[in-house]
Amino acid sequence: MSFDPASLTYNDAGLIPAIAQDRDGTVLMLAWMNAESVTRTLQTGRVTYWSRSRAAFWVKGESSGHVQRLVEMRVDCDRDCLLVIVEQTGPACHTNRRSCFYTAIRDGAEVEIMAPEPD
Amino acid sequence: MSFDPASLTYNDAGLIPAIAQDRDGTVLMLAWMNAESVTRTLQTGRVTYWSRSRAAFWVKGESSGHVQRLVEMRVDCDRDCLLVIVEQTGPACHTNRRSCFYTAIRDGAEVEIMAPEPD
Repeated sequence: MSFDPASLTYNDAGLIPAIAQDRDGTVLMLAWMNAESVTRTLQTGRVTYWSRSRAAFWVKGESSGHVQRLVEMRVDCDRDCLLVIVEQTGPACHTNRRSCFYTAIRDGAEVEIMAPEPD
Repeated sequence: MSFDPASLTYNDAGLIPAIAQDRDGTVLMLAWMNAESVTRTLQTGRVTYWSRSRAAFWVKGESSGHVQRLVEMRVDCDRDCLLVIVEQTGPACHTNRRSCFYTAIRDGAEVEIMAPEPD
């Protein structure tokens, strides 16, 4: 069946959450896409989100160089979430850590489990 | 630093997306939590979402038996997304597949990459 980005379920703002996972299994980040982001990501192979704060397309790594090359896009059973398997160049997080999920909750406390990478 | 669920950033509906990942690295599903879901998940060790369709707490697997035991909860850099590492009993998806992300987009077409597990 051919894939149509319009067939996905978007929220009231026209957005769908996209989980980025490195091909080694590490969950890197979650960001949002609109239908045009989905189309551009598939067409260009460069993961392209919609920045809610800037209200603009966000070609991941365009300014930092920390690009995400699309390996595969997957859709969930409810068609309201995406999983993008990526090849990540450099750290995915704007704090220079490999993943945005660097804070664990252990015994009721926040513990940093990942250090920033050297520049 | 001690962790307070109220310190997370929730959307207008009071919810935060939670990505469930099996400890082997497989991304299983994305669902939503409110602050009380976060508290209950940490206190009980049973992953507890908020069902938007039923407007009720959703102790994953309560009816199906396909429970998620919490291994570790992680918070992202913006504090507006959670990653829950889980030990999943049985399939995570209501379609009886291990993961909800069983549809891949390949060459512009939808391809089913995961079969339902036998009952």
